[in-house]
Amino acid sequence: MKIDGRHYRSLWWNATADVLEIIDQRWLPHELRIQPVATLQDFADAIREMRVRGAPLIGATAAYGMARAMADDPSDQALDAAHRFLSDTRPTAVNLRWALDRCRDALRPLPPDRRAAAALELAHAIAEEDVEINRRIGEHGLKLIRDIAARKPAGEPVRILTHCNAGWIATVDWGTATSPIYQAHDAGIALHVWVDETRPRNQGALTAWELGSHGVPHAYVVDNAGGHLMQHGLVDMVIVGTDRTTRRGDVCNKIGTYLKALAARDNGVPFYVALPSPTIDWTVADGVAEIPIEERAAAEVTHVQGRAADGRVASVQVTPRGTGAANPAFDVTPARLVTALITERGICPATPEGLAGLFPELARAAE
Amino acid sequence: MKIDGRHYRSLWWNATADVLEIIDQRWLPHELRIQPVATLQDFADAIREMRVRGAPLIGATAAYGMARAMADDPSDQALDAAHRFLSDTRPTAVNLRWALDRCRDALRPLPPDRRAAAALELAHAIAEEDVEINRRIGEHGLKLIRDIAARKPAGEPVRILTHCNAGWIATVDWGTATSPIYQAHDAGIALHVWVDETRPRNQGALTAWELGSHGVPHAYVVDNAGGHLMQHGLVDMVIVGTDRTTRRGDVCNKIGTYLKALAARDNGVPFYVALPSPTIDWTVADGVAEIPIEERAAAEVTHVQGRAADGRVASVQVTPRGTGAANPAFDVTPARLVTALITERGICPATPEGLAGLFPELARAAE
Repeated sequence: MKIDGRHYRSLWWNATADVLEIIDQRWLPHELRIQPVATLQDFADAIREMRVRGAPLIGATAAYGMARAMADDPSDQALDAAHRFLSDTRPTAVNLRWALDRCRDALRPLPPDRRAAAALELAHAIAEEDVEINRRIGEHGLKLIRDIAARKPAGEPVRILTHCNAGWIATVDWGTATSPIYQAHDAGIALHVWVDETRPRNQGALTAWELGSHGVPHAYVVDNAGGHLMQHGLVDMVIVGTDRTTRRGDVCNKIGTYLKALAARDNGVPFYVALPSPTIDWTVADGVAEIPIEERAAAEVTHVQGRAADGRVASVQVTPRGTGAANPAFDVTPARLVTALITERGICPATPEGLAGLFPELARAAE
Repeated sequence: MKIDGRHYRSLWWNATADVLEIIDQRWLPHELRIQPVATLQDFADAIREMRVRGAPLIGATAAYGMARAMADDPSDQALDAAHRFLSDTRPTAVNLRWALDRCRDALRPLPPDRRAAAALELAHAIAEEDVEINRRIGEHGLKLIRDIAARKPAGEPVRILTHCNAGWIATVDWGTATSPIYQAHDAGIALHVWVDETRPRNQGALTAWELGSHGVPHAYVVDNAGGHLMQHGLVDMVIVGTDRTTRRGDVCNKIGTYLKALAARDNGVPFYVALPSPTIDWTVADGVAEIPIEERAAAEVTHVQGRAADGRVASVQVTPRGTGAANPAFDVTPARLVTALITERGICPATPEGLAGLFPELARAAE
């Protein structure tokens, strides 16, 4: 999407310099720093230190890392070593493993002297696939926004609430939850986006940065505000992303998503989840009972990062000395609270039949 | 309550120095600074700058301010001037006006030479009344906690979630929502308190400081976490305070309270509201429709205060430059989501009959 009028992706291959270029997300939303990723070690660091984040983006970055490794040494041994090395950077990231396995399985049968070129082609293909999936999610979601806009008085914006950052910088382009928003904005539909702050890591600031950079009207609100906004008719729809969706449509997403889904139901506001099909976990049905929730470091809760008075990025401790914190990173929104799922193949109810109807071959393969 | 084993109130009269002493709450939870409030100007500053906060505490402070004014000059003119001067410090604080009117109405009929002593007595009485109301709220709430403790396996703590700071430092002592918690802890019941951070102003840090200082086990969580905790059976009850309760039991409290009430209902967790009867607004029935919600400064949302790496209290901006924020300060939890109200006269359902049954003379007076 655009930053001050210029189109960016969150990574791109610089063929001249033979490096991947990324937006170093640790400095967002305060500074836009573009960084070359040159060596295999650089790739591992970029993923481990969350210079890149978001499942699809991590997967694409890892694929370029495999290309780097094959350009350095295309042997079987180097292939396996790179797979292991990159895989260890974020042990729980499903997309990372998926991308690395796909690269290894495609490259292994090739003669070594063809692997470097093939690996780079494959990385490009993985990145393009992500862009295309998200573009299609946006096309389907756009229809929902258009329908709401058609029912509103002329000139009144469609008010959309979103939680966390399921934006273009979490993917290669478009984002998932933001893709319908960008497409509606680009189609000239008046929008106002309520951006949930999303403590503890404040990914809402990333979403606000994205929307502001692309020119989409929005306001940043604390996570506590959404219920009140819905009670007063100030939210027309909620769109969020998901880290993992069960085969019956339970949605595991950033902590606090469930609270917004409850408020949406209590106020008759439609609650949509945008998801690329790779996030569907066909092996799981009951998300609350079956999905283990990652407990992250207490420091994410006790400390907040931002821009200090001197302009530098700094962190302050908000809790008293000695206070402990719990930090569950995700929660599960039961399918009963989800109005519909927006996928790259269309929109379906959050039910086993809904998902299997759109993805019959995946549902069958998992049986 | 206690700070490191020593009992404190949030204000006390120092007769030797002829000043009020307060805990300057702007520095909490990071520093305990006790400050004398000597001149009438000091009293106005203490209230306006939120060195004292919380409706009951502001009321008591203002009453001591009237005593200060009468000691300086007990004339009718000085009485009216002090009332006006203190009243202007927080234009929307109902308790402030209530305390000041009460002082003026009691002092005006007295001969000027008796006003200084009477004003100080009245300030003491207002402070003591607040302590007594909160103590009783705690006694009634303690029964609820005891009942839950009795149903749990031995040694397992009663897990209570609270939002914002309805604690002893928002009152003269005990607090409202925290009073049952302190009494249960002091009675030897094992507790674990989940303290909601309560963005934007992070009053949860005050609650965490209070609980830690008194020795009550607790953990600080982001406002997003409560739903997940309830889904997993980790919350036995919710207790919150209220700024204003309608005659039918709708509860206007710090923004985000409504979301926790929704999660409590969805998970069968009892949701209690602790309230001193002065917070009942008998003129209002439908809280969502009738109570105007204060929109506060965007800077409370865009900036976060805490302790910087150098130990000083500092603030950082969490949003990108140019991002606007909305900041509704309160929301309304409809009575249908409230399990019961805990008042100084006992526990009642959140219904017109429930409240009128406990406070018949107030209900009648408002008819």
